[in-house]
Amino acid sequence: MRDAGGWRRRASRTLFESPWLRLRQDDVTLPGGEDITYSFIDHGGYVVVVPILEDGRVVMERIHRYTVGRTLLECPSGGLDGEDAVTAARRELEEETGYRAATVDSIGAFYGSTGISNERFDVCLARDLSADGTIQREATEQIEVELHPLAELKERALRGEIEDGPSALALLLAADRWRPTR
Amino acid sequence: MRDAGGWRRRASRTLFESPWLRLRQDDVTLPGGEDITYSFIDHGGYVVVVPILEDGRVVMERIHRYTVGRTLLECPSGGLDGEDAVTAARRELEEETGYRAATVDSIGAFYGSTGISNERFDVCLARDLSADGTIQREATEQIEVELHPLAELKERALRGEIEDGPSALALLLAADRWRPTR
Repeated sequence: MRDAGGWRRRASRTLFESPWLRLRQDDVTLPGGEDITYSFIDHGGYVVVVPILEDGRVVMERIHRYTVGRTLLECPSGGLDGEDAVTAARRELEEETGYRAATVDSIGAFYGSTGISNERFDVCLARDLSADGTIQREATEQIEVELHPLAELKERALRGEIEDGPSALALLLAADRWRPTR
Repeated sequence: MRDAGGWRRRASRTLFESPWLRLRQDDVTLPGGEDITYSFIDHGGYVVVVPILEDGRVVMERIHRYTVGRTLLECPSGGLDGEDAVTAARRELEEETGYRAATVDSIGAFYGSTGISNERFDVCLARDLSADGTIQREATEQIEVELHPLAELKERALRGEIEDGPSALALLLAADRWRPTR
């Protein structure tokens, strides 16, 4: 439910656009009457996937991130290409790791950085996995797949050792939901 | 520790700059030899504060977010004005809520959106609070302070009801760390 909060948009323009983000700049009148310019990232949304094997291990990625000059341990993730989150989760999981999931559920959706962006990510739990998919990575996706127990990843997230925030949050949600099937 | 991962930057330019974010565009050669252009947000970092009263209630904010057209329940937060995270946490907490904290500890630091931004946020736990500070809000900060029990906020975060991702993660970390003082 949108809620303008008394803010009034007078004009809006796109300063930059790429397939991954747009930079938008709006002229806005605040509830108190002050006129300001608000520049922020307009983003199509993405999905963070926690793919859990029956033995409780999670399919994680060691991925190089140019933005921060680091190689990080993250959950599989990717942008919504005009799809719903569950469809995107299935596609990204297979493209990045080669795993396919028979069961995918969205277990929460969160804004990423409300001061400067409208980006939103769904957290999806992926289960009933099979390793018979087809990897199709983009040139920028330098990824190594690693399997780690969910209980261990939860502890690492709580200690701040999963440095990608959306992955840490996704793992904590998954650890709260997931139970062994027998 | 920076790790170029075999990516080679050939050029870098700033396409847009405001006090809150910069849009940077780099020409990069990937490890495989392909030349690409990578556009991303260059951000100075921020802090998310979980201020906990002795009775276990958390000082939260109901704040309007123009970016998403919503009024959300969030932890106090704000940008690092060239300060360390603990100093920024004390300042933002007082400016936004009027509470001052005698004890502030960083309990983790996370990247916010590694695909498109280098933004990083520290999670700080603020304790030994007193309500005798001076509120100094910016014109864009429409904030109402609300006190909610930490145990309840933890459950809401796990159910996806704290829609600001960094706040949800901060609350889950705080709930794992905080113990009543007696």
